[in-house]
Amino acid sequence: MGENSQLVLAGVLLSLIVIHLASKVGGEICVRLNLPPVLGELLGGVIVGVSALRLIIFPGGELDANASLIINLLQNTAGLPPAAANSVFEQQSEAISVLSEIGVIILLFEIGLESSLTELLKVGTQAALVAVVGVAAPFAGGVLGMIYIFHAPPIAAIFAAAALTATSIGITAKVLSQIGRINTPEGQIIIGAAILDDILGLIVLAVVSGLGQTGKVDVGGIFYLIITASTFLVGSIFIGRALTPLLATIVDTLQTRGQLIVVSLIFAFSLAYIATAIHLEGILGSFAAGLVLAETEKREGIVTDLTPLADAVVPIFFVVVGARTDLSVLNPIDPVNREGLLIALFLVVVAVLGKVITGLVVFGKPGINRLAIGVGMIPRGEVGLIFVSVGATSGILPPATQAGVVVMVIFTTFLAPPLLRLVFKDPPLVAQKSSD
Amino acid sequence: MGENSQLVLAGVLLSLIVIHLASKVGGEICVRLNLPPVLGELLGGVIVGVSALRLIIFPGGELDANASLIINLLQNTAGLPPAAANSVFEQQSEAISVLSEIGVIILLFEIGLESSLTELLKVGTQAALVAVVGVAAPFAGGVLGMIYIFHAPPIAAIFAAAALTATSIGITAKVLSQIGRINTPEGQIIIGAAILDDILGLIVLAVVSGLGQTGKVDVGGIFYLIITASTFLVGSIFIGRALTPLLATIVDTLQTRGQLIVVSLIFAFSLAYIATAIHLEGILGSFAAGLVLAETEKREGIVTDLTPLADAVVPIFFVVVGARTDLSVLNPIDPVNREGLLIALFLVVVAVLGKVITGLVVFGKPGINRLAIGVGMIPRGEVGLIFVSVGATSGILPPATQAGVVVMVIFTTFLAPPLLRLVFKDPPLVAQKSSD
Repeated sequence: MGENSQLVLAGVLLSLIVIHLASKVGGEICVRLNLPPVLGELLGGVIVGVSALRLIIFPGGELDANASLIINLLQNTAGLPPAAANSVFEQQSEAISVLSEIGVIILLFEIGLESSLTELLKVGTQAALVAVVGVAAPFAGGVLGMIYIFHAPPIAAIFAAAALTATSIGITAKVLSQIGRINTPEGQIIIGAAILDDILGLIVLAVVSGLGQTGKVDVGGIFYLIITASTFLVGSIFIGRALTPLLATIVDTLQTRGQLIVVSLIFAFSLAYIATAIHLEGILGSFAAGLVLAETEKREGIVTDLTPLADAVVPIFFVVVGARTDLSVLNPIDPVNREGLLIALFLVVVAVLGKVITGLVVFGKPGINRLAIGVGMIPRGEVGLIFVSVGATSGILPPATQAGVVVMVIFTTFLAPPLLRLVFKDPPLVAQKSSD
Repeated sequence: MGENSQLVLAGVLLSLIVIHLASKVGGEICVRLNLPPVLGELLGGVIVGVSALRLIIFPGGELDANASLIINLLQNTAGLPPAAANSVFEQQSEAISVLSEIGVIILLFEIGLESSLTELLKVGTQAALVAVVGVAAPFAGGVLGMIYIFHAPPIAAIFAAAALTATSIGITAKVLSQIGRINTPEGQIIIGAAILDDILGLIVLAVVSGLGQTGKVDVGGIFYLIITASTFLVGSIFIGRALTPLLATIVDTLQTRGQLIVVSLIFAFSLAYIATAIHLEGILGSFAAGLVLAETEKREGIVTDLTPLADAVVPIFFVVVGARTDLSVLNPIDPVNREGLLIALFLVVVAVLGKVITGLVVFGKPGINRLAIGVGMIPRGEVGLIFVSVGATSGILPPATQAGVVVMVIFTTFLAPPLLRLVFKDPPLVAQKSSD
């Protein structure tokens, strides 16, 4: 505490300044190139992250305090003693990491508030089909290709293919929100499928990390995951709906400042906590909270209050995702990277095709934009990176395959936002100037 | 990454839920008892903190993961393995600590935005005299009493006395507005003096926290710190004022969401970082940023955007300050505690008398209510709590003195509203119910 805690605070403040500058500069450049701002936030993150300036980096691998430009700045401007460098580095990185996770929890709360449970249930079957095909197709293609083209060992093939199944709900939802398409049938199918995909992804991750650690599939554990996930989603929505009149009464009874935003955050954080505690993702909880509150008369007020809060914390998430992405694997001059780049080429093709075809399975919706649905499922983003990190720590993925998966994640993540804007050709339903 | 990072996130979410519940329940009870909500947030923190429930506690002393009810909950609900308990406890506590420090930075940014440099200059000599006497009198009384009556070490005496100099501009302004007295000569002088006192208090805080870091009463150091603090404050205000047209142009040029709040936060965090880096307090920087932006045409918009953000993070600060305060030293049954209780009694007397006499120095205003001016300067509120928090984290204040200061803050904050009502005998000009 004391001196160190002031230095950790200084590091966090400096990181937040860098993150907000990177996200705003990147976002503004992209918006002027008619690209989604979120792409700019990701690219801004790449610039300040491990691949370039190394301002925003996280401990792990060969990265310690000496690699961090923020820590260097603290040593030169704030008198950080070298002995304290690693401890301050770890603590300020952890704080930024937590803020970035709170950022994505707030983002999904916001997306939930923009969504409609009624609309989601209407497209439920379609969303489920899209999710299942979007997991099965790239997984099958990935396993077969890795074994028959690249002669990979089965477990490595399964792991690489598993990373193909993910969908980054954060990136897709943000783009949809920015182009004003959340509340279209296509938007709701994508959101619903991405949510289901998040749960399927957790199941796939449990299977493959079980395979990696023990060489066996833990059937009981998977069964437990499926049961808890469905119970949680259905339960939180039904219990949440039953609770909303009580929440509204509480908000109306309170007389101190910030009653609406604080009660909403308590609700969202509670569901996020329960989801995290039962080993699901916190974002599932905050999304469910948003969905439930979207049906109340307080929705408008919550959205108004939540917007500046989201503007302050959500960019932390996107910049951190970009900052964690190591682009050095893309360098073709290094011969070590060539096998990885070939694997990458194959994985990118399977990743894109495996998700694009999901639009074809949507039925009973004449005139629906099937291509848009498929494209909306493309970005792997932070979910793909989780697979890479589990694969890397368990040693299942050979370096070339690991690099290939990273390249696949980078390509799908950075390609999806502009592609998504392209496939939604018509002018946006709601002209929003300052809302993106 | 991985499992531990999810558990840290779960701990942070649970802590935030507890903090917001405590602040709202405490604030609502106090508002119904016609007391300032900030008092309730502090008491809510006491209830969930080290003195009672031990939900929100921080590593240090004899407190480890076993003492934390949050960690116990994580073990029982989220499957936290005992081996990881201490590491998760430290990481989640550090994150909450950082959030609480960001909370107070945002609070002082808000107070700066509520203040007005122009107004401050207009009130002139009367307010300046009241402010200076209101700092000098309780400080001198406090230092002398602490050294000669309680034989305190000079640094602890200075720190306790410094906490006596504060005036809570927020509480004073809210109380005056609630009894419809803002636009009286007395109200004008109180507000002006409280604004000045806020700046004087920040300089005193910078001086004493600098003292706490070096551990010595260093006259050259004090002089250096006064120079740094004044140079920083004056410099950042002048350079900041020169920059505001540029900031306004940037905000107007930006097309992505959240341009106003993000640019404002970058500005506030930058000044806060510079202040922290040169070993002043971050709050000095955000207060200066608020003062500067208060003069621009963007002020209204910034306040609107900042309000829900402040509602979400500022209570973390108040609850954490309450949670860190170990009230067990005030138990009169334990003879060890009698010194703390005597200190508290002494501090309350000096705190009240030292401010009440300020009304006597007002000249050239025949018929003015001198008692009302003095009473208006009594509440220490959040500014007094900042002193406690800095004293607690730097380890300068012995537990008995720290608890004594907290009791002084609680008493002055608690006494001011009914006393003010009493000394303004006429019926209120405007009745405002829900403005707090």
